[in-house]
Amino acid sequence: MANIKDIAKKAGVSVTTVSRVLNNHPYVSEGKRKAVLLAIEESNYQRNINAVHLSKGETLLIGVVVPFTNHPYFGLLVEGIANEAMKNNYKLVLFQTNYEADREIEALKMLQYKQIDSLIICSRICGWEIINQFTEYGPIVLCEDARNHNVSSTFIDHYISFTNALEYLHNKGHYKVGYCIGRKSGSSSRQRGKAYADFLSRINERYNEEYIFYECLNFEHGEDVVRRLSSMDNPPTALLVTNDIAAAGIVTSCREIGIRIPDDLAIMGFDNQPISKIMHITTLEIPLVQMGRNLLLQALDGEKHTHEEISVKLIERQTV
Amino acid sequence: MANIKDIAKKAGVSVTTVSRVLNNHPYVSEGKRKAVLLAIEESNYQRNINAVHLSKGETLLIGVVVPFTNHPYFGLLVEGIANEAMKNNYKLVLFQTNYEADREIEALKMLQYKQIDSLIICSRICGWEIINQFTEYGPIVLCEDARNHNVSSTFIDHYISFTNALEYLHNKGHYKVGYCIGRKSGSSSRQRGKAYADFLSRINERYNEEYIFYECLNFEHGEDVVRRLSSMDNPPTALLVTNDIAAAGIVTSCREIGIRIPDDLAIMGFDNQPISKIMHITTLEIPLVQMGRNLLLQALDGEKHTHEEISVKLIERQTV
Repeated sequence: MANIKDIAKKAGVSVTTVSRVLNNHPYVSEGKRKAVLLAIEESNYQRNINAVHLSKGETLLIGVVVPFTNHPYFGLLVEGIANEAMKNNYKLVLFQTNYEADREIEALKMLQYKQIDSLIICSRICGWEIINQFTEYGPIVLCEDARNHNVSSTFIDHYISFTNALEYLHNKGHYKVGYCIGRKSGSSSRQRGKAYADFLSRINERYNEEYIFYECLNFEHGEDVVRRLSSMDNPPTALLVTNDIAAAGIVTSCREIGIRIPDDLAIMGFDNQPISKIMHITTLEIPLVQMGRNLLLQALDGEKHTHEEISVKLIERQTV
Repeated sequence: MANIKDIAKKAGVSVTTVSRVLNNHPYVSEGKRKAVLLAIEESNYQRNINAVHLSKGETLLIGVVVPFTNHPYFGLLVEGIANEAMKNNYKLVLFQTNYEADREIEALKMLQYKQIDSLIICSRICGWEIINQFTEYGPIVLCEDARNHNVSSTFIDHYISFTNALEYLHNKGHYKVGYCIGRKSGSSSRQRGKAYADFLSRINERYNEEYIFYECLNFEHGEDVVRRLSSMDNPPTALLVTNDIAAAGIVTSCREIGIRIPDDLAIMGFDNQPISKIMHITTLEIPLVQMGRNLLLQALDGEKHTHEEISVKLIERQTV
């Protein structure tokens, strides 16, 4: 296989010129550029791209941290990230963390060791004391409100959107309102928990731990929720479900056992996934694909830290 | 930041010894190894991992080609791949092709240029004449029967599984059977098309183009299928749907407009996704997570080409 010296010799130029052509450097005459490209073509030259990147200090790889690769919420986010990456000739290195801190730290270390150019964290498990140790090594972009930190972020205001959803249910006559959420900790869960507590105290309702359902991520979790609901003496009359897939699972399980929606139980989803449209689920639309695109562009933007709040929209259908 | 020379000086050893320690080379005395590790720790030395990989010729990255990042079928495959990669300390570089050949070629070129150690193609768009040009550069693993090629593969026999599904429907009294599939071309579509044609000629039924529904990938496509069905003078009495999500969409849309399942229309899915369990959809179980794990292990296996056929299982529920 021809190396860079062979190419230079064949093209009648210096090794530096070949390197400049390979790296799209300016200040190479058109004649020399063509001679190099011809020599490369004729000798079937294989660049060692790692070496090229090493000299340029970039990998054209963007790291993406997700807790699960196989969840529709992260599916839409990654779809947006992947589409925008494709357009800009970047590839994604995928980190599935299962919400284990060590996995997230591995991703941060790949940024530290320059194996990726920047890192997008779609849902964070590590505390800021850890993230902050890595911000000097390259752009870190988060999908949460991170305006006070040395990173970029694209986010929705979970406190306000949760409050609006709760008020909507209350205006429809519900005061026994519960909610279903993915995990107990995490910044969005905390914001939503606060919105819920503030809502209850505004409408003078007692906090009832039974009304909160954790680990509610997938279609199949709907079954558990409905089983628990049917065993309650005083069940909620409305549920806010923080993702549409779980909401669809709840609606389906309710149908199975004759709980009428919305008469016996009102259901409000989140995201506006395709399944919510078909199943006529009232939901809060979160433009996840657009958010994914934005995250990728912020990752490419490098040094400049930007923060963009994305607004959500209520989609009224038939489950409230 | 300390470089390798600083470390060598600090540890009182040669640069070669430091490099050997970094690369887990044998023949380094325990005393020297400890001195190097201590010097590294004390000087907060940042290895340039790309340089390390360059010298070892490996990246610890495995490429994964999928047509869509956001589809439950590929979601489960990638989940299996990602879990096994995590265990083995490999990371995934994700290529979303949208079934565009150029995107797949980009992935193959990353293998050629040693930017990834091996490549898993979950669903192929390029012809073998292209794939074959890249098999010399590193392990390529396919999720289709590729026993005659210079690659590894994990696959199911689509001809036999489709035939079995069709015969099952026929034994239940159906002879007007149609099917829904993702794309017209592709090796699995061809095998299934052949199984369908052979089935029809076995039961002496005429081939009816109207009974085949393409581009049937997602929940929302169920609506289109049901709309087309309701406009037919002589609709099929049973549908084989090559993925459960689309099957769930069809079942949901049928409910909407009063088509009774299985009385008016029998539905049989594929994959045994969680949604099929909740919605009681009869389906052929394909162990996608297990297949994903296998694909990753084959990718790590390097030179040795192996081929593993995975068997499917009929799960009888309530839609046939």
